[in-house]
Amino acid sequence: MSKKSTRKKSPPRVLHEGRFLRFMDRGGWEYLERKGASGVVIVVAVTESREMVLVEQYRPALDARVLDMPAGLAGDRPGEEHEDLAEAARRELLEEAGFEADSFEFLTEGPASSGSSAEVLTLLLARNCRRVGPGGGDADEDIRVHVVPLAGIERWLADRRKAGVMLDPKVYAGLYFLQTRLGV
Amino acid sequence: MSKKSTRKKSPPRVLHEGRFLRFMDRGGWEYLERKGASGVVIVVAVTESREMVLVEQYRPALDARVLDMPAGLAGDRPGEEHEDLAEAARRELLEEAGFEADSFEFLTEGPASSGSSAEVLTLLLARNCRRVGPGGGDADEDIRVHVVPLAGIERWLADRRKAGVMLDPKVYAGLYFLQTRLGV
Repeated sequence: MSKKSTRKKSPPRVLHEGRFLRFMDRGGWEYLERKGASGVVIVVAVTESREMVLVEQYRPALDARVLDMPAGLAGDRPGEEHEDLAEAARRELLEEAGFEADSFEFLTEGPASSGSSAEVLTLLLARNCRRVGPGGGDADEDIRVHVVPLAGIERWLADRRKAGVMLDPKVYAGLYFLQTRLGV
Repeated sequence: MSKKSTRKKSPPRVLHEGRFLRFMDRGGWEYLERKGASGVVIVVAVTESREMVLVEQYRPALDARVLDMPAGLAGDRPGEEHEDLAEAARRELLEEAGFEADSFEFLTEGPASSGSSAEVLTLLLARNCRRVGPGGGDADEDIRVHVVPLAGIERWLADRRKAGVMLDPKVYAGLYFLQTRLGV
């Protein structure tokens, strides 16, 4: 039997049970999974004035500040998966960035890092976002909010990266959807 | 002292040493890091006929087939970081997809999943890709190669996802760069 068919038939096995993450193995392939959450939502947030709402925060995994779209975990309420994702998106956009939107439109979903993680992301579009609070996250977070005009944003992102802030490549996936949905 | 400043000052600690990955903690924040590789390259590959080259394979972490851009690990040769990334991109494009390109142009780099991983991705653009072999990966891999016309690709991707194949959202980041670099 080949290694790949062994992998498919192998049940997952816990290598180490963490508090928030679980280190797993399936047929010799190692990966992690998140505990106590059904998914991760990422909000592609744009204002009526065609600005993208981004957040920047220190990330212990990288020991660096990282620039990304507002994002967070979705809870795990069986039978309420869809509502739950939009609700999680609404909550994260408000808590992290201090913005509100009327609706959250499904864009795509898929693995965060398919070689090493079972986590699945859902991208949602929030149009006509408006500032209603300071943002900044909860007591544990120290989030800087950026409201960046779409005209010239690629240069702005590259400059920020050159200044030492890490940039999540998924921001460009967000820009793809803004280009195609808003005709930017 | 607040929790966030504790995290910044905390040294990383190994929770579990795997064969390929290491499960880590920094000040109460859990994440993984990859062993024996300096980075991950992702190839945004396009043919002269404006088709995007994508790969589909079974991923044990998700127990599902995943559609993604050709990608792989870059080795760790100090002082040769740049050359090494382009060389890794060339190797992965050939092994996984069976395609060659004249050059690999840096697009962006950043964290794969900043909440739970120290892994950093580098996206490289490969223009004028041409088929020179079967692709399919090494003996352990079972990779299906897709050569998809950019005209209509968003519908094709959505259909593939509805058919049960998971789609890495970073493919849309690749499409952003193709739109802006090729004027698609």
